[in-house]
Amino acid sequence: MRIVELRSDTFTLPTEAMLRAMARAPLGDDVYGEDPTVRALEEKAAGVLGMTAACLMPSGTMANLATLMAHAPRGSRVLTGQDSDIQVYEAHGVSVCGGVALEPVATDDRGLLCGAALERALPEDPDDPQFSLPAVVCVENTANRAGGVPLGPADLAPVRAFARRHDLVLHVDGARIFNAAVALRVGVAELAAGAGSVQFCLSKGLSAPVGSVVTGSAELIGRVRRVRKMLGGGMRQAGVIAAAGIVALDTMVDRLEEDHEHARLLADGLAGIPGIEVDRVVVRTNMVRFRVAGPGITHQGLIALAARDGVRLAELGRGTLRAVTHRGVEAGDVARAVSVVAAIVRAHRRAAS
Amino acid sequence: MRIVELRSDTFTLPTEAMLRAMARAPLGDDVYGEDPTVRALEEKAAGVLGMTAACLMPSGTMANLATLMAHAPRGSRVLTGQDSDIQVYEAHGVSVCGGVALEPVATDDRGLLCGAALERALPEDPDDPQFSLPAVVCVENTANRAGGVPLGPADLAPVRAFARRHDLVLHVDGARIFNAAVALRVGVAELAAGAGSVQFCLSKGLSAPVGSVVTGSAELIGRVRRVRKMLGGGMRQAGVIAAAGIVALDTMVDRLEEDHEHARLLADGLAGIPGIEVDRVVVRTNMVRFRVAGPGITHQGLIALAARDGVRLAELGRGTLRAVTHRGVEAGDVARAVSVVAAIVRAHRRAAS
Amino acid sequence: MRIVELRSDTFTLPTEAMLRAMARAPLGDDVYGEDPTVRALEEKAAGVLGMTAACLMPSGTMANLATLMAHAPRGSRVLTGQDSDIQVYEAHGVSVCGGVALEPVATDDRGLLCGAALERALPEDPDDPQFSLPAVVCVENTANRAGGVPLGPADLAPVRAFARRHDLVLHVDGARIFNAAVALRVGVAELAAGAGSVQFCLSKGLSAPVGSVVTGSAELIGRVRRVRKMLGGGMRQAGVIAAAGIVALDTMVDRLEEDHEHARLLADGLAGIPGIEVDRVVVRTNMVRFRVAGPGITHQGLIALAARDGVRLAELGRGTLRAVTHRGVEAGDVARAVSVVAAIVRAHRRAAS
Amino acid sequence: MRIVELRSDTFTLPTEAMLRAMARAPLGDDVYGEDPTVRALEEKAAGVLGMTAACLMPSGTMANLATLMAHAPRGSRVLTGQDSDIQVYEAHGVSVCGGVALEPVATDDRGLLCGAALERALPEDPDDPQFSLPAVVCVENTANRAGGVPLGPADLAPVRAFARRHDLVLHVDGARIFNAAVALRVGVAELAAGAGSVQFCLSKGLSAPVGSVVTGSAELIGRVRRVRKMLGGGMRQAGVIAAAGIVALDTMVDRLEEDHEHARLLADGLAGIPGIEVDRVVVRTNMVRFRVAGPGITHQGLIALAARDGVRLAELGRGTLRAVTHRGVEAGDVARAVSVVAAIVRAHRRAAS
Repeated sequence: MRIVELRSDTFTLPTEAMLRAMARAPLGDDVYGEDPTVRALEEKAAGVLGMTAACLMPSGTMANLATLMAHAPRGSRVLTGQDSDIQVYEAHGVSVCGGVALEPVATDDRGLLCGAALERALPEDPDDPQFSLPAVVCVENTANRAGGVPLGPADLAPVRAFARRHDLVLHVDGARIFNAAVALRVGVAELAAGAGSVQFCLSKGLSAPVGSVVTGSAELIGRVRRVRKMLGGGMRQAGVIAAAGIVALDTMVDRLEEDHEHARLLADGLAGIPGIEVDRVVVRTNMVRFRVAGPGITHQGLIALAARDGVRLAELGRGTLRAVTHRGVEAGDVARAVSVVAAIVRAHRRAAS
Repeated sequence: MRIVELRSDTFTLPTEAMLRAMARAPLGDDVYGEDPTVRALEEKAAGVLGMTAACLMPSGTMANLATLMAHAPRGSRVLTGQDSDIQVYEAHGVSVCGGVALEPVATDDRGLLCGAALERALPEDPDDPQFSLPAVVCVENTANRAGGVPLGPADLAPVRAFARRHDLVLHVDGARIFNAAVALRVGVAELAAGAGSVQFCLSKGLSAPVGSVVTGSAELIGRVRRVRKMLGGGMRQAGVIAAAGIVALDTMVDRLEEDHEHARLLADGLAGIPGIEVDRVVVRTNMVRFRVAGPGITHQGLIALAARDGVRLAELGRGTLRAVTHRGVEAGDVARAVSVVAAIVRAHRRAAS
Repeated sequence: MRIVELRSDTFTLPTEAMLRAMARAPLGDDVYGEDPTVRALEEKAAGVLGMTAACLMPSGTMANLATLMAHAPRGSRVLTGQDSDIQVYEAHGVSVCGGVALEPVATDDRGLLCGAALERALPEDPDDPQFSLPAVVCVENTANRAGGVPLGPADLAPVRAFARRHDLVLHVDGARIFNAAVALRVGVAELAAGAGSVQFCLSKGLSAPVGSVVTGSAELIGRVRRVRKMLGGGMRQAGVIAAAGIVALDTMVDRLEEDHEHARLLADGLAGIPGIEVDRVVVRTNMVRFRVAGPGITHQGLIALAARDGVRLAELGRGTLRAVTHRGVEAGDVARAVSVVAAIVRAHRRAAS
Repeated sequence: MRIVELRSDTFTLPTEAMLRAMARAPLGDDVYGEDPTVRALEEKAAGVLGMTAACLMPSGTMANLATLMAHAPRGSRVLTGQDSDIQVYEAHGVSVCGGVALEPVATDDRGLLCGAALERALPEDPDDPQFSLPAVVCVENTANRAGGVPLGPADLAPVRAFARRHDLVLHVDGARIFNAAVALRVGVAELAAGAGSVQFCLSKGLSAPVGSVVTGSAELIGRVRRVRKMLGGGMRQAGVIAAAGIVALDTMVDRLEEDHEHARLLADGLAGIPGIEVDRVVVRTNMVRFRVAGPGITHQGLIALAARDGVRLAELGRGTLRAVTHRGVEAGDVARAVSVVAAIVRAHRRAAS
């Protein structure tokens, strides 16, 4: 049975071209700064994001952690969306490893930090030592738990202005920033403008097996490298990973449009099922969020039964289901997912009535 | 000009009896555990709170910090009210020194943690390493930024049950727990029941010059002492401080009722001033919260002008004013504060009209 | 039985003048910066040390911890003597709370950091992120575990030059710096010259009950205050403590000479006992180090038996005994200590022969 | 010009078989625990080391860091050789991220912790909170900066006994433990016996491009995985890396004997050059340490000139040179390295005479 993997776009497998590139890449010891393929990826990534330097990381978690540690001194505070991945899914590493507090900030339903909430996160009196001082504001684009709505330059402008006004660094957790750029038909560099740092993942929709990249100024990246080494993110012949990343940047960006089209198809199909409520407003990139409204079945039940039929769905917390499209999901898979979910829900509604 | 100090009850001065006790106390080196006056205070405090052991601290901030570090392992999370002192006023010390994340939890308007918000703060899947694990739930009683409403055993029951159900320690930041006990006419030990630790301040309404006390099990207090030493809270002839603390516990608890009566008088007086809005519902202990509603004057302006007339008020953040009664504030002071505020507001309303 | 307390000079009790000053001191809330007696002590202390600002602390441990956190960014290294109090007796707080590594450096037998060892502690290549970067060099004067030998300006010059050459801050742990100054007949300001910070204890030979003071530039002290608040070292009516500190600085410095004279007497007396080996070279301030050489008794045995006769001695680790003179030890006490030790050793030698 | 790369065995390139395995490996998302190739590597590694579980890491630095954080609670101490990689080359990450102090312990010239030094590192009184408590003892086998001398079961017995006696965990930094096992003709499991954890590198002599593996009990590895995620060491399709690791374990262990033979040849050759002093006693695995004794040239000069002739040597700190043999160094390369060094030294001696 072919598996329809909709839990996450992190399940993407490398392409043939990536595997070939990995086998042929010129290699060196990147801990000595001598891997030419890593250097090539870092230069390319910096260029694409409109930054001057970049640094390969084993994961997006470390990309965020090392960058925040490079920006924020011990005892300072990082303002981030209350439902952002940095707040929810990264084990509060920056508090543990960096002695930095995470301050969750209320967002709108696209995951964008609210201006009023940002103001409230400022210390009442910065000279009063009872208050820790903010150092960084984070924006996630697209915001995972908000359903992947892309945030454009106009959306980001107020946060950017807030950061500038209060002398804070703006860090963009752009794990899926290429999805945002493709959906909005803008360059990623436009989405990165004004940020002190942007990290993006090679291993999600871009389909590389491993890795994320932090981009920023040469000075910042120097400090990020120092933290990366301490955390254990320095890898030896990392060119094997970087080679796939180069192919990803060269060939995988434009095809994200397909994933978005598949997500729309999936949303439309699921919305047609009585007992399923789809949050269609947010379907702008590669994610579909929905809830089981009908009687007779819980969201956990639906996940378990669909998995038995080869369709894997994820829970997004608090009763919401998530389906994410990616290179491994084709149009036929979408159709099959819809019909599997429809059959399960129909059977339970009948039983419950 | 006699100053009417309403900014905080931390301004209380020691009584003559305290000063005498300090001068006569038998002393020793408490870092060696040999100060008999400190031992006496710790035994008394443990007894009053219904705990088995106690530890003197130089401040409430360290009392909270050392206790949370003793409870919560590195990488865990502490759930605390979004407006609690631990979250807002203690510089996130437990993240800096302990590698522990603070998770702000929504509260009702008495500062009591909401059940739904507590549930949301639990990890979706405790086995998934993306989520840090909660270790402690904190309750502040009375809650400073909620206006000092006392929380009784029935109020606390759901949080206590939540902690027990999820195997979390309940820590009570009882900086003003004696105000709560007096207002509710219950013993403090009833308010401490079910908690793994309670800290209270000797230096607020109880009028001692310096110090807070952590109470809990002997095993916990052993670990708290270890952290206290590391933080630099071990003091040599600390009996000079403890002596005042003993007098405070012996003679200052019952008189908190006066402070509460003065707060009611103050609230009534302020409420009678056109252009002042008093949050009278919350005036249950020694705090009065109010806002300037009238035209022509901001809250900062009122603070500045009242100070010129010898009446000191505090800002509680976001435009709210705070007046706190304590042993240094007498009935006449309350009357004077009301008339000073009334005169300032009246003058400005006239000018603005 | 009168106790002869020779374990430490931290056992000193406050003088009558101190107790009177504590009872009469004008007080305020020092967390608001409004305690006039604290301000007066801080100004006096800064002046005496030749610095521009100062900050009262509840202990020498916090004085060192907060100062090192103010100097050393997360991830940096602090070089300190391998037997210094900061390395051995302060629970590695700066690593726990500050994310700063302590690098123990070999010292000569006066506790002075060896030049060659300092050079070895430098990173082989500061640009290589495998190496953490040093930020601070600490000198302890007098060095407790080295027997209290005072280090003069000429002794300190090479360390000072090393720090300047490598752009490191020099921090002086001057817990007993007044003992050094008195023994060397120089001003403490001369011993502080070239240092970025000096902390000294009010509670050792200077006889105040509680407290230490950090001195340095106004900019540094601002940052130290911020850290102090976070650690919980901000105390309310701290003037009660500071009042004793002022008396200590005014009246207790010169009389340290007596303690030194008593130490010499004690060393001479002990040296005359067959079976006791006194390290007389180091008896320059208020400490005497000796070992039990004779048969029939261990150093633990001697400590236990002397304690039974009212003479309290301490172990300095690894078989060495320590006796410390201070205001509570008079000439007659010294004579009694010698005769008690002599009797114990004599009895055991007889038994063993 | 063919480069003779003797700076480190981290420069090894993957074999053809590794690259093929990487391209064919069944993959999954290892952050979800679903990468079958990672699982296969981890099972194999655990088996080889005689442990029950294992966890793939992006580097040896993270392997040590995450394992030490899993073993050692905040505020505890890790005893490690004063010249060990954990002490010198890993940026004190465990102090920064874990709030754990590193205590450098004197070693003999094979890098083995001295018993007396271990005893001195114990707290004088474990109940006294001035002392942080040791939790872990680390042994590096082979010890990099000691020249790669393999430590056998009999060598390790005293440290093992010390750990057991004082209830400390023994962690083996086995970055090159397979070199030790091959040199001593014992199984690696014998070298791991008694340890609570062993980490080894796939990326050194074993020639895989990236990765290290931590082995231990299932319970420990569960905690290590949690820390790994927080540090950002969880990688998506990590099977691409693990595939090479499996080939490394299957085919690269026995051939380490060749590297050792080449190191002996190199040592013999260098020892025959007047003006070069080789530390031949330690040449037991794949490292050669030597110094330039002759006039006219410094060790930095020799490194620079040899590099110009295609022979790359490393500095081991403090004037010592290091040459490391590995799969990329053949017998002819060794001969060439010797003749290049000989020519340089000869030319300079002539010039200097």
